[in-house]
Amino acid sequence: MRDGLQMEPVFVPTSEKVALIDEIGHCGLNRIEATSFTSAKAIPALSDAEAVMHEIERVPGVRYAALVLNRRGAERALECGVDELNLVVSANETHNLANTRMTRAQAVRALLDITAFCRDRLAIGVSIATAFGCPMEGAIDIDSVLDIGNQFVAAGVRGITLCDTTGMANPRQVKAVCGALAARWPGIELTLHLHNTRGMGLANVVAGLDAGIRHFDASLGGLGGCPFAPGASGNICTEDLVHMLDAMGYATGVDLERLIACARRMPGLVGHGVPGQVQHAGAWDHRFPPPADLEATRERALARELSGDAYRAMRPVVER
Amino acid sequence: MRDGLQMEPVFVPTSEKVALIDEIGHCGLNRIEATSFTSAKAIPALSDAEAVMHEIERVPGVRYAALVLNRRGAERALECGVDELNLVVSANETHNLANTRMTRAQAVRALLDITAFCRDRLAIGVSIATAFGCPMEGAIDIDSVLDIGNQFVAAGVRGITLCDTTGMANPRQVKAVCGALAARWPGIELTLHLHNTRGMGLANVVAGLDAGIRHFDASLGGLGGCPFAPGASGNICTEDLVHMLDAMGYATGVDLERLIACARRMPGLVGHGVPGQVQHAGAWDHRFPPPADLEATRERALARELSGDAYRAMRPVVER
Repeated sequence: MRDGLQMEPVFVPTSEKVALIDEIGHCGLNRIEATSFTSAKAIPALSDAEAVMHEIERVPGVRYAALVLNRRGAERALECGVDELNLVVSANETHNLANTRMTRAQAVRALLDITAFCRDRLAIGVSIATAFGCPMEGAIDIDSVLDIGNQFVAAGVRGITLCDTTGMANPRQVKAVCGALAARWPGIELTLHLHNTRGMGLANVVAGLDAGIRHFDASLGGLGGCPFAPGASGNICTEDLVHMLDAMGYATGVDLERLIACARRMPGLVGHGVPGQVQHAGAWDHRFPPPADLEATRERALARELSGDAYRAMRPVVER
Repeated sequence: MRDGLQMEPVFVPTSEKVALIDEIGHCGLNRIEATSFTSAKAIPALSDAEAVMHEIERVPGVRYAALVLNRRGAERALECGVDELNLVVSANETHNLANTRMTRAQAVRALLDITAFCRDRLAIGVSIATAFGCPMEGAIDIDSVLDIGNQFVAAGVRGITLCDTTGMANPRQVKAVCGALAARWPGIELTLHLHNTRGMGLANVVAGLDAGIRHFDASLGGLGGCPFAPGASGNICTEDLVHMLDAMGYATGVDLERLIACARRMPGLVGHGVPGQVQHAGAWDHRFPPPADLEATRERALARELSGDAYRAMRPVVER
């Protein structure tokens, strides 16, 4: 809900956000980022964070998370009883400044402070944006990601999320980076946050799976387009992700049909089509009826075989 | 061009098809399926097969292929001097009947005849449709695929193409099936023909790469939607595929920028948007300029650090 809706120009009414989160809560997902406690001026689409958090049903077993960028946001989130804070800092300076108006060093200090004072009261995860590349600076050294992550691991976060913020990552890179970092941070819940900006989203999921990743962020319908790539896809699509994992034989614990039904509400909520495929195509194991005239077609085909046409059909190509 | 255009309701003028194929021919692709020699009534979009084949530039090093379903089609293709025949038969009976109005056994016999009489004159490949599943019958036993393929290998085809005709395949399955069949058919050029109907297209490419596949069918812009999944994507997208392979470090030999320029012509040719992502987003290594006010933002951020606001920004969260 957070990354999917934050850039949408329409304000989805609070009651509809709540109804959708309540329905998603019963689909079997283990974490729902319900909103963000950020500036209503910067992100008007999520200006109803308090109302959303107070009105949603808290389904047992589901962690309701919220994104937070600063101390004020953390205070607001604590007041609403969120289960988990999602702190965000970029791996590089340019993106962090553009995204949060703080230097990277300032952001790290502020978020470490929040971690120190909140970690006994709720779970804390830190999302490292641009972990696989920055659309302005380009390649990101894995040491930058490692350095930031190490500080938060030492501070006691529960999880780290590696974010391919603008869909620059490729499967080979994802496998290498995730493998290296998972080995450095045993015991940390490592999540991949992928965008499908260049069509590589689910390919990167498979690469992450190969590297041992078992937690993935995604958004219903694949909402969450990037300002740097107008017309391109957003986050990887939750229902397409669950569908692929199901087809591959992973036990997701998610009720795919119910999730698809939720996803089909997104175009109506945001007022435009969404990139998700499975909500159009149905699941891979859906059976379509054969054409009504199939038996007649078969009979005609076999009849041709018994007539001169059959000979013609099987006659070798004439040499020219 | 063939799988991309065959279902489009508009007839792309021959001159525009030729111009596009000519431009694609200089992008570094090694095989272009230019058209199909099928019934003009069944596939009106490709009723100009002869004209297209006669008018296109034959760029050295590029194999110009055409799809053929029967003897008459093979004769027409030979008259036009195509480099390669793409014969198509489905792995299962229902799909083959619905698709070609022949039983599977009839189709195999007809195509084996064509193979026997054409193999000394041009390259022949056989595409096995529904190799990973049939939208009507469901799961396809790998032995059906193996049995059909074995007959064509024995008949002397150059290549076999495994087709995920309606985008049912998942990465685990692709890796298993391709690995098993590649081991059975050494010396055969094995191609994967994937659709992105359920968003798994490029993930399946990676799975195919893992299994040793190095040839992939794709269509510019990702055209080629499936009649069973209205609104869903078509073939995997050529430029998105090349882009991913480039990003992963594979030497494709393709001029990606030139290919993207070709792909950007598709919406105009077919009169609607296309599913391809990279033509919107640009390549992963494209650099976007930072916001114009970035330095001012940095100065304000650092100034806050020297004032009371900085202390406030860094002050720990108040216990409540």
